[in-house]
Amino acid sequence: QGTRDHPPAHVALRDRLLAAVVACFKRHGAAAIDTPVLELRETLTGKYGEDTKLIYELQDQGGELLALRYDLTVPFARYLAMNKITNMKRYHVAKVYRRDNPATTRGRYREFYQCDFDIAGQFDPMIPDAECLKIVHEILSALQLGDFLIKVNDRRILNGVFAVCGVPESKFITTCSTVDKLDKMPWEEVKSEMVGEKGLSPEAADHIGEYVQLHGGLDLIEQLLQDPKLSQNKLAKEGLGDMKLLFEYLTLFGITGQISFDLSLARGLDYYTGVIFEAVLLQQENDHVEEPVSVGSVAGGGRYDGLVGVFDPKGRKVPCVGVSIGIERIFSILEQRVKASGEKVRTTETQVLVATPQKHLLAARLKLISELWDAGIKAEMLYKKDPKLLKQLQYCEDMGIPLAAIVGEQELTDGVVKLRDVARREEVRI
Amino acid sequence: QGTRDHPPAHVALRDRLLAAVVACFKRHGAAAIDTPVLELRETLTGKYGEDTKLIYELQDQGGELLALRYDLTVPFARYLAMNKITNMKRYHVAKVYRRDNPATTRGRYREFYQCDFDIAGQFDPMIPDAECLKIVHEILSALQLGDFLIKVNDRRILNGVFAVCGVPESKFITTCSTVDKLDKMPWEEVKSEMVGEKGLSPEAADHIGEYVQLHGGLDLIEQLLQDPKLSQNKLAKEGLGDMKLLFEYLTLFGITGQISFDLSLARGLDYYTGVIFEAVLLQQENDHVEEPVSVGSVAGGGRYDGLVGVFDPKGRKVPCVGVSIGIERIFSILEQRVKASGEKVRTTETQVLVATPQKHLLAARLKLISELWDAGIKAEMLYKKDPKLLKQLQYCEDMGIPLAAIVGEQELTDGVVKLRDVARREEVRI
Repeated sequence: QGTRDHPPAHVALRDRLLAAVVACFKRHGAAAIDTPVLELRETLTGKYGEDTKLIYELQDQGGELLALRYDLTVPFARYLAMNKITNMKRYHVAKVYRRDNPATTRGRYREFYQCDFDIAGQFDPMIPDAECLKIVHEILSALQLGDFLIKVNDRRILNGVFAVCGVPESKFITTCSTVDKLDKMPWEEVKSEMVGEKGLSPEAADHIGEYVQLHGGLDLIEQLLQDPKLSQNKLAKEGLGDMKLLFEYLTLFGITGQISFDLSLARGLDYYTGVIFEAVLLQQENDHVEEPVSVGSVAGGGRYDGLVGVFDPKGRKVPCVGVSIGIERIFSILEQRVKASGEKVRTTETQVLVATPQKHLLAARLKLISELWDAGIKAEMLYKKDPKLLKQLQYCEDMGIPLAAIVGEQELTDGVVKLRDVARREEVRI
Repeated sequence: QGTRDHPPAHVALRDRLLAAVVACFKRHGAAAIDTPVLELRETLTGKYGEDTKLIYELQDQGGELLALRYDLTVPFARYLAMNKITNMKRYHVAKVYRRDNPATTRGRYREFYQCDFDIAGQFDPMIPDAECLKIVHEILSALQLGDFLIKVNDRRILNGVFAVCGVPESKFITTCSTVDKLDKMPWEEVKSEMVGEKGLSPEAADHIGEYVQLHGGLDLIEQLLQDPKLSQNKLAKEGLGDMKLLFEYLTLFGITGQISFDLSLARGLDYYTGVIFEAVLLQQENDHVEEPVSVGSVAGGGRYDGLVGVFDPKGRKVPCVGVSIGIERIFSILEQRVKASGEKVRTTETQVLVATPQKHLLAARLKLISELWDAGIKAEMLYKKDPKLLKQLQYCEDMGIPLAAIVGEQELTDGVVKLRDVARREEVRI
């Protein structure tokens, strides 16, 4: 349940998509690593907040207790700590596993690819963070998915907001998961969860509500830096200062047009400590609606400065920031587009079919195709001793093979091959 | 246990290796499919003989009972049956999982890549089978792994041998697994397992021993076709007839020099029904030994005409033949070779580092690198506000980045960039 087989047309399209993403990661100087699908259960425990229950666990068959990786971030942090690496820019494209309620029509599966790019190391503030946002911008632009918006926030600003609204520190993380639901639920429901389930006072909730409905750009950052309460909070002030710096760098990159500082963005995971962000595609069809409607997140990430330290025996921290591209949703969109356009995706790359017009020429075909393969040419033949020429040419048409190399008795005698352009129906002897 | 993280140098080398294998599969006109890592437990049960105990099972967390795939062949057969596909040439490169005793120095892990190519469909005999062997030959040649030998046998011939030696049919499969150990144990031990554990008579075992120690080429096939007992056995006769045909095709491909018809080859898996084969690398160092010593199997496969039918509700069969390339062992060999040669594998593809020689030029760097990225150029910069020029050039040397694009105050004033060839220490203003 929640998984699927990928037929050739899928894989061909997905490989195209992955190639574009990986090209961007390489353009930014990242190296690839790979980690096992299996992790120790204890490695994953307590890293994913309320979603820990969605981890696939392996049966105890003797030996270590194992689970399937839930994302690529926690394995990366473990990798850095285990190998005492304090400085690395890496990408990782691989499948992750979540026992979630699948929503396959929206591209939500229990087994899905993640494409992660992360920068680990102690650097000057917001330079790597800005690069992560540039990468999201480059990838979404390159894939021509239409208009998109990258929402940005900072966990320190959120925590500052919670503090000035009177939320006790012990409830910051759980309040954060509730705020995170704002993109799926109206404010009234979010408020009632805050008060009912999380035990905040209605006044605190209302106060939070005023903040988290704000979004804007540099102007909003300036406004909040002047906010009498927020500007008194150390965390919020730090976060807002860095946010300002981030916007300066994004201005130099020329991408602020697609960036929104959005205080409702919270991200569900426990491990974020600074900047967080999420990219959404905007509805194209209804040009008359005033505010474009989001059709779901296609990339997300943020800063997690504490996670590597959790895996280090001495708790040594390695600051990290990274981004994950949600290629399954992007794939769903591209797939629908290909279907709508009627474009036929070729699933093989065969250049030439080796064919014969008469019987008893299997040996000639085998000799010729063997020469072609050895010369690096992509070649096929039908696996029949005496196939009809028409069937052979039909196979070319069905599979989009552009050429047929035909050897008949006459060609054998003359020491030539008849090369046929399948679409034009033209032949030359060579 | 038995798994490992792959650092960038690993992944870079592995990607090179996988690219060569996939290029060969595409050259032969295969399309790619992908299936989930998770399979229903019942799909895997009873397909792997004595090795079924090595399957990783998932914890029952509600819902279906799941396991991790053990190979790519069973999922392929399930895929064909589920989708009612009767004709397909596909490749699949993915990881599989086995709770085996790891022997990591010999490249044997619990999580490892398999690279499979299979041809499904009802065709004229031995044409697809011959292509599978051609593929093994092409890949091992292309990777320049030194001398290799592809052993070929046929399950029908083996079963014929067992029959004429007086083994009851119910013991064919289990006797087959014992014969399969001949590459790791001397004949005396294999015999004692046949007699002691499997309950064959010592005479039957000795008789089998005479056959399974034979190996050769067309001459041996002819000899066995004349064998008074074997030639009376229907299965053996069919198998030998096809083996003769196979050798004819392999002669046309020009690869019989690396092929040996070897009656000791049995292959452990239950599902094979016809031709089976396995490629081994031959020891290079000791030229004086008479018989080259095998250093382990690097590819294997065979025909499995019954497996798809097992998954079809009506038992409809789809004949299949395929090959699996053992890239982990090949990787171990190549890795040792790279180490020995001292070659430095670049793990990134960065073309240019954007650098500044003075302070307060971060904005200039960010603007320039952004232009380069947008132009598709692979570019990096140090994540520091004011890095020293020496450090920046040192980074180029360490990472093998060929060029540095330097913007200083003078360059900014003049509207130029200084491009430095790092290795030659030459600069031009552009």
